[in-house]
Amino acid sequence: MRSINFNAGPAGLPLPALERARDELLDFKGSGMSVMEHSHRGKEYEAVHGEAIALLTELLSIPASHQVLLLQGGASLQFAMVPMNFLPKDGSADYIINGAWAEKALEEAKTVGAARVAATSINPDKTYTRNPKPSECKFDPKAAYVHLTSNETIFGVEWFDFPSTAPVPLFADMSSDFLWRKVDVSRFDLIYAGAQKNVGPSGVVVVIIRKELLAKGRKDIPKILRYAPHAENNSLLNTPPTFGVYLMRNVLAWMKDVGGLAKMEAWNREKAGLLYGALDRLAPFYRAPVEKESRSVMNIVFRLPTEALEDAFVADAKKQGMWGLKGHRSVGGIRVSSYNAVSVDNIKALVGFMEQFAKSHG
Amino acid sequence: MRSINFNAGPAGLPLPALERARDELLDFKGSGMSVMEHSHRGKEYEAVHGEAIALLTELLSIPASHQVLLLQGGASLQFAMVPMNFLPKDGSADYIINGAWAEKALEEAKTVGAARVAATSINPDKTYTRNPKPSECKFDPKAAYVHLTSNETIFGVEWFDFPSTAPVPLFADMSSDFLWRKVDVSRFDLIYAGAQKNVGPSGVVVVIIRKELLAKGRKDIPKILRYAPHAENNSLLNTPPTFGVYLMRNVLAWMKDVGGLAKMEAWNREKAGLLYGALDRLAPFYRAPVEKESRSVMNIVFRLPTEALEDAFVADAKKQGMWGLKGHRSVGGIRVSSYNAVSVDNIKALVGFMEQFAKSHG
Repeated sequence: MRSINFNAGPAGLPLPALERARDELLDFKGSGMSVMEHSHRGKEYEAVHGEAIALLTELLSIPASHQVLLLQGGASLQFAMVPMNFLPKDGSADYIINGAWAEKALEEAKTVGAARVAATSINPDKTYTRNPKPSECKFDPKAAYVHLTSNETIFGVEWFDFPSTAPVPLFADMSSDFLWRKVDVSRFDLIYAGAQKNVGPSGVVVVIIRKELLAKGRKDIPKILRYAPHAENNSLLNTPPTFGVYLMRNVLAWMKDVGGLAKMEAWNREKAGLLYGALDRLAPFYRAPVEKESRSVMNIVFRLPTEALEDAFVADAKKQGMWGLKGHRSVGGIRVSSYNAVSVDNIKALVGFMEQFAKSHG
Repeated sequence: MRSINFNAGPAGLPLPALERARDELLDFKGSGMSVMEHSHRGKEYEAVHGEAIALLTELLSIPASHQVLLLQGGASLQFAMVPMNFLPKDGSADYIINGAWAEKALEEAKTVGAARVAATSINPDKTYTRNPKPSECKFDPKAAYVHLTSNETIFGVEWFDFPSTAPVPLFADMSSDFLWRKVDVSRFDLIYAGAQKNVGPSGVVVVIIRKELLAKGRKDIPKILRYAPHAENNSLLNTPPTFGVYLMRNVLAWMKDVGGLAKMEAWNREKAGLLYGALDRLAPFYRAPVEKESRSVMNIVFRLPTEALEDAFVADAKKQGMWGLKGHRSVGGIRVSSYNAVSVDNIKALVGFMEQFAKSHG
């Protein structure tokens, strides 16, 4: 029986994408070998690679001004590649801080050059329960770029209206809310997202970069860390993580089959509505710390009256086949990661469990 | 029916490793989810991660002085990480050049600092048909390290006796001959190998580093590009490519089951003996350009009298289910990649085909 998977990433994947992988694991399209045994320079893999990029372009309506790259190293390597490429020696970059991941991106940028905090929503107790307000953003008009984290996986804080930074380029780490809905890509100059939330297994990171930006990247750094050579080689500069890209293709094909990002958004809004509705209804037993306008649709965090009850909640849920409800080790509490592969029924089952648990322990 | 796979990488994998992956793709150990859907912080994945490292340590007899890291970005990212970590601003590193991959490693090092050629075996026509001789190596006694490529995948040149460089640390890119036999790890300070030849799918790179070296790495570079934080976090600093590591575990378990590296070496020597024996016997129709003492056991390259015959050879072989015989696009000719998953019978089938082809076209 299939478990209910609320992992924060690597996360659950849509069953049809996995079944497709299983069914052709030993024999990809009658070739007598697995897709992962094909050369990355052969037409069989190249078709998969091209289809993954084409599906992504179609689903997100990526404009011709932007190029999709499929790289390795996760968002963590992007934290370094972004400033290595676009933070000039005599320049400075602006970072908007809304959680632990933005902090990490900032720390890596500081190893490369001057990076400043344009805004932060940190609380006195070092937690985050909202995004910075527009009025709190003190942008440097000469900044090389502004960097933000569209969804804070750990604290459950998400952006719904992005700040305007033009003419300063806007970069976004969208790892944990990539493809939950359509986003206007043209507003961003660089988007990156680790695949292991909504798009595939870990080991692939998607980058969407404005083509004009490519030529502006620094050229005095190692070639493998420059975006331009990857773009020139259609992400085949070196051997890509072929099986990861193949699985991503399967997930994207599933997304398209079931109705694209409009359907994803409808499902995700319904799921978040059910869950936050339950939290509000069952308060104060459950306490959702994030301010309403910043509540993440992807990572829903809450607390119970005591840590002992939180442990019991996680353990009891696991007995009912629900995995991954423990909050991030740095903050504790409960976290429900409700990515695209989590169904409305999965959330209904969880809400049912939450009601019962509150009744028994409230 | 299973094809015969002579791809240079990504390459064929042992069937039992793939079957194991297929059988548990939807349900890993009764958990109701795929291993790729498990958290990298959960005990299920951590057991796989630990087992992969333990198997590698056992198979290669890696001494306690060294640590295994499982990273992303392939050998190409190692070309950059090695000098970023270990080439000081006022220092210089020595590179031994025996082919195209060593050239690439050198080029990346030059973006970081001073890198010099300690020896090269390049021919006037820019090809490589042997390793440099010990007498040709002009080592800098003050070099930060010496870097060599143990097997040149494109030109089919392999080291069998490594040069002594002590007290200067010896670093080796072993991507395409890693685990073909036992190697004395203690002679090296850093070994790296992209998995997609003998060890697994693309997307994982194995690094074996002398622990003493870790503290000597530069600290003023991004954290994700430093070896020390990866070592401190047992390669869980960021999300690892979990499914790639899992498949690597399956391949390593297969290696152990069938007899370990002693068996791999016996098989590989038998396969290379059969193939080079046929090339010598069927000369001058087939011409093996590499000098005998540098002939690679992993990548066997040869030419036919004309390019048209080479094309016919590749096409006819494909009709008989043999894939991947075309030489690298940069050099042409024929290349047989005979990694661990290629059986003695596969090579016998190829030799039979070569005999027939020579008879029909010779």
